[in-house]
Amino acid sequence: MNEFALIARYFDRPCADARLAFGVGDDCAGVTVPAGETLLVTSDALIAGRHFPHDTAPFDIGYKALAVNLSDLAAMGAAPLGVTLALAVPAVDEHWLAECSSGFFTLADQVGVCLIGGDTVHSPVLSLTVTALGSAKPSRVLRRSGAKVGDLIAVTGTVGDAGLGLRAVLNPSSVPPFVDAAAQEFLRERLNRPRPRLHEGQQLAGFAHAAIDISDGVLQDLSHVLTQSGVGAGLNPNALPLSPAAKTWLEAEPTLRGLPWRCGDDYELLFTLSPHDWPSCPVAATVIGVIEAEAGIRWRHADGRVEAVQPEGFDHFAPATQAEGS
Amino acid sequence: MNEFALIARYFDRPCADARLAFGVGDDCAGVTVPAGETLLVTSDALIAGRHFPHDTAPFDIGYKALAVNLSDLAAMGAAPLGVTLALAVPAVDEHWLAECSSGFFTLADQVGVCLIGGDTVHSPVLSLTVTALGSAKPSRVLRRSGAKVGDLIAVTGTVGDAGLGLRAVLNPSSVPPFVDAAAQEFLRERLNRPRPRLHEGQQLAGFAHAAIDISDGVLQDLSHVLTQSGVGAGLNPNALPLSPAAKTWLEAEPTLRGLPWRCGDDYELLFTLSPHDWPSCPVAATVIGVIEAEAGIRWRHADGRVEAVQPEGFDHFAPATQAEGS
Repeated sequence: MNEFALIARYFDRPCADARLAFGVGDDCAGVTVPAGETLLVTSDALIAGRHFPHDTAPFDIGYKALAVNLSDLAAMGAAPLGVTLALAVPAVDEHWLAECSSGFFTLADQVGVCLIGGDTVHSPVLSLTVTALGSAKPSRVLRRSGAKVGDLIAVTGTVGDAGLGLRAVLNPSSVPPFVDAAAQEFLRERLNRPRPRLHEGQQLAGFAHAAIDISDGVLQDLSHVLTQSGVGAGLNPNALPLSPAAKTWLEAEPTLRGLPWRCGDDYELLFTLSPHDWPSCPVAATVIGVIEAEAGIRWRHADGRVEAVQPEGFDHFAPATQAEGS
Repeated sequence: MNEFALIARYFDRPCADARLAFGVGDDCAGVTVPAGETLLVTSDALIAGRHFPHDTAPFDIGYKALAVNLSDLAAMGAAPLGVTLALAVPAVDEHWLAECSSGFFTLADQVGVCLIGGDTVHSPVLSLTVTALGSAKPSRVLRRSGAKVGDLIAVTGTVGDAGLGLRAVLNPSSVPPFVDAAAQEFLRERLNRPRPRLHEGQQLAGFAHAAIDISDGVLQDLSHVLTQSGVGAGLNPNALPLSPAAKTWLEAEPTLRGLPWRCGDDYELLFTLSPHDWPSCPVAATVIGVIEAEAGIRWRHADGRVEAVQPEGFDHFAPATQAEGS
């Protein structure tokens, strides 16, 4: 099967979106951006062995490559317009392609976004580079730079699940006995099929002062908001929202308690908002700290102690021999 | 140096384009698409050892990754709005990054386009995935599907240069003695630094009936136009425009005479237009054939013979052990 037939069979699907002027078949895809809205663009690459373990199910690889890019749109409060996929594969494996395509389109259909173009190439290393296009009214775009002193810092959902899920995948024997099969499955699902918070992002647009998605770890992603906004933060070290599965694991293995602050791949939203607006916050979220004038991040302990925090999270260029967060 | 510092040093450059609402530093870049214009998007990946030889100069790698994507915008008659780059590198080599960045931005500056976002990741295999964004008035977008029976088929510039340049790079001893150093340098330059025909594409918009860029070979790219338009073509086997360097080589090695029809990577434009419009064609081009009602491609020899042509060009999934066209 040649390149063109391959693309057509698994990735050339009809698109019902009226904003798509034309798609696969020309040198470019054509999209109509809603009048008065700003185009938002993000591009993230996932590399096998680096962003996901080599034996990850192809369904999950396809799903996650799309999810992490849609999460960037969510963080800006954008609605998706379309996505492209540059797929580099070591060989033409029809079963693999069918499964990967199925994962990709499962999420695409859930959020109502079309695959409008891309590229399929041969490479010794499997990789997927997705570019996601979205749009929002200029006045409603969520930025990293809008955090104000006195703002509350909040996160959606729970964090740390994906990091623990990765531990369970890479070293199943290290999982404490109290973390049962259902809990492990929950954590793996959180790792492999993160739900981009598109709905929540659009609800926060025009409401939150600043936002980012948690891809590299709460502390590291928060530090980007702080740097861009020229502020600092004080955090409650016990306030991070944890799932029952994560709580069970961390109670059995207290040395991992810092992990949910530093591991990535959860793709929840972190945002800041005025304390006056907190009662009417349109999304379910948990307050973890406050924006402060002094640069840097500090734990503010219940007994009054203040402790400086190093925000390092996942660094793609740090030495690594196995998959880590993307 | 961590990932973020690396990105900032070589790829985070100020952008003077007023259409850029915001760039590097947020989860997405924001771009204002000109009112009434359609957004055009294309995404192409270049893999080391597949789309360029491993020892290609990093300047040329950066240049070409951008060029091949801008060429897709050119083929649709679009003006560039911005580009993203997903860069996967085996190691943090500052000299390499500086040179690659220099090549990328040399072309970006020449055509006046900004790098508005992207991703930098670690991978065992070097790859660059560029997404190019452009726009055009809907009525002026050049498509592959518009060729009409009776249209002339024309190409800009000369073709075959990149294919011969690749032969010279991969096997210098195979170059005939008559092809001197200057000619070889010309061919290598055509391979490594193709000039995207953005100006020509915009001039042809609203004038040509159909267009495509020549990335996979004249015959294969023409066949896409024919398929999308539901037509066929008759070609003059002696009409292909050749550079002096290519002519010298092919005269010394007549067995290669078919190569310029089949090798890719020239990034010239192939387009069709009414014969009545040919005298006023706004770009320099050479007529190589005519659109015919019967499907398929035929050589129409001067002596009246008609010969069916197989359009196969470069196939990224065909067995290959060395770099070929992208």
